[in-house]
Amino acid sequence: MARTGRRPGPTETRGEILAAARRLFGDLGYDGTTIRGIAREAGVDPALVHHFFGTKERVFVAAMEFPFDPEDIVPEIIEGPRAELGERFVRFFVRVWGDPQSRSGFLALVRSASSNERAAAMLRQFVTSALLARVAEHTGLPRLRMELAAAQLMGIALMRYILKVEPLASADDDEVAALVAPVIQHYLGTGEV
Amino acid sequence: MARTGRRPGPTETRGEILAAARRLFGDLGYDGTTIRGIAREAGVDPALVHHFFGTKERVFVAAMEFPFDPEDIVPEIIEGPRAELGERFVRFFVRVWGDPQSRSGFLALVRSASSNERAAAMLRQFVTSALLARVAEHTGLPRLRMELAAAQLMGIALMRYILKVEPLASADDDEVAALVAPVIQHYLGTGEV
Repeated sequence: MARTGRRPGPTETRGEILAAARRLFGDLGYDGTTIRGIAREAGVDPALVHHFFGTKERVFVAAMEFPFDPEDIVPEIIEGPRAELGERFVRFFVRVWGDPQSRSGFLALVRSASSNERAAAMLRQFVTSALLARVAEHTGLPRLRMELAAAQLMGIALMRYILKVEPLASADDDEVAALVAPVIQHYLGTGEV
Repeated sequence: MARTGRRPGPTETRGEILAAARRLFGDLGYDGTTIRGIAREAGVDPALVHHFFGTKERVFVAAMEFPFDPEDIVPEIIEGPRAELGERFVRFFVRVWGDPQSRSGFLALVRSASSNERAAAMLRQFVTSALLARVAEHTGLPRLRMELAAAQLMGIALMRYILKVEPLASADDDEVAALVAPVIQHYLGTGEV
C-alpha cells in the first residue's frame, strides 16, 4: 500500500513498532534486540516505544502474542505459602492455556521454534531471562529444577491443547491440578517428593 | 522422473510403500489407514507390506521416523520391579532423545502437529493406540496418569532438545534421571508422591 502524507495515528504507530519488533527479535534474538533498535527500525523515537510498552519484555509479549506477561505473573504466583507453590503454578498455567486466544500465540511459538534454530534461540532467551531468571530471583531455586517444572507444564500444553489426547484434553482443571501440583512442588518446593 | 519398464528393486519398493503410507496417514489419520490401503496406494500386494514391516504400527514408525518402536520398547520398560518403573522410563527417553537422528523425526512430528490439525490427529491416534493403550494393557494404570507422565517426558524433549534451555540442555542423563524418575513414579507407580 502506498504511504499517504498524513501523520500515522497511535494504533498505526503501535502496529509499526510491533512489526519492527518481530523483525528484530527474529533476526537478532531476544538478547540482541534493544528498545532503541526497535525504535530505529520503526522510524520512531525510543520514548514512544517506552510510552506504549514500558519494557523490552512487554514489547516481546505483545509482538509475539506470548500467552502471559511474566513481569506481572511471576511475583503474583511466587507470593504466598511455599507449600502451595506447586498448586498456584499449575492452576495459573491450566487457566492460561485453557483460553483459546492465549493458546494461539503459544502454538505459533512452538511451531516456529521447532522449525528453525533462530526462532528457538529467540524463545529460549526470552524464557530464560523473563521467566526463569525471575523465578530464580524470587525463590533462590536451582535453575535445573525450575526447567523441569516448566517442562512438565509445557508438555501438558502440548498433549492437552495441541495433540488433544484424551482423557487429558477434556479433564477438568481441578483434576489436572490435583495430580500435577505435587510434581511442581517436588521441583520447586523442598525437594522431598 | 519417467518410469522405466524394469521391475523395481526391493529398496525402491520399500521406499514407495513408505511414501504411500505417509500420504495415507496424513490424509486418513493413523486409525483410518490400513495395510491393505497402503498396498493399494503403492500398487503392491498387501503381503509385501507385511513382509517388509510386519504391522501397521511398524509402517508408521518407519514412514514417520518415529524415534522408537513402541511394540518393542514398552514391554521391555514395563518388565522389572514396579518401584523402578519411573527410572527405567526416564532413562529410556533420555537415551532416545539424546540421539540426534531419533530427534529429527520427533522434531518433524511436533512441527507438523503444531501446524495443522490433521497431523495432530494422526500423531494423537498413534500415541494413543501404540503407546498409551499398550502401557495401560501391561500396567492397568489410569490413562490420565500415563498422559501426565508422557507430558513430562515430551516437555523435557522440548526444553532440552528444541529450545536448548541451559542448564537442562547440557545436564547429564544421570542428573536428569535422578530428578525426574520420582515424578514418573508418582504418575505410574502407586500414586503416593
